[in-house]
Amino acid sequence: MAAHIRGIHHINFLVRDLDQAELRYREMLGLGPALRDPLPGRGVLTARFRLGDAWLVLVQPTGEEGEPARLLREHGEGFMLLSLNVADLDEAAANASAAGVPVGPERRGLEGWRVADLDSGETFGAQLQLCEDPNGS
Amino acid sequence: MAAHIRGIHHINFLVRDLDQAELRYREMLGLGPALRDPLPGRGVLTARFRLGDAWLVLVQPTGEEGEPARLLREHGEGFMLLSLNVADLDEAAANASAAGVPVGPERRGLEGWRVADLDSGETFGAQLQLCEDPNGS
Repeated sequence: MAAHIRGIHHINFLVRDLDQAELRYREMLGLGPALRDPLPGRGVLTARFRLGDAWLVLVQPTGEEGEPARLLREHGEGFMLLSLNVADLDEAAANASAAGVPVGPERRGLEGWRVADLDSGETFGAQLQLCEDPNGS
Repeated sequence: MAAHIRGIHHINFLVRDLDQAELRYREMLGLGPALRDPLPGRGVLTARFRLGDAWLVLVQPTGEEGEPARLLREHGEGFMLLSLNVADLDEAAANASAAGVPVGPERRGLEGWRVADLDSGETFGAQLQLCEDPNGS
């Protein structure tokens, strides 16, 4: 059974101040305005830029609750996770599990993305996620 | 002046044991064999997988010398940097500098990639690199 990785779907960076970070990214990389969306289930605001066939997502926790807020508290700003674009989340998760890599519960990301995290204790420290995008990209 | 970001060129993850890590990535993600290359100037061996229009690169320091070895020593395995695919490295670096983000010296990556690191002190902790790929991808 293959996981059918299509590519990189998105990459998340934690920031403390979304407005400042978006402005800095726009200026230093010559990007247009980001798309903004809250993701209340994770306790965050997000700003995302389209880079080729992937998203670069800036993530700002809005309070002390939730995993992103905990990561920011404990590790500071910077890389949060790399999310891989898979054709079928269930199949990709079953494949990872069968290879000895525990997969966390499915949850909804932005725009209805179906996501599930791989256990970074079994991926040589890499913070990886599987993502099936119902919008196809 | 725009930086003309084409997309994500590659993302690097530091590992201690390249053989073990490559095998795990292949199994958990259903990937074929990685392309292997040394990069002596950085003191590393690498194994890279093609994911859509980007590379996922596993990086194993071969000794105690060099920046990757230092990062592994101080921060352990996991995310190392995100490299952005730019049409023109000089233009993109000048754009970042003009936006107040210092850019490190140009160096050669795998396959002659022209790369330069952005100062993560000015990118809200994100470890970003600019990459002009003479092979065009």
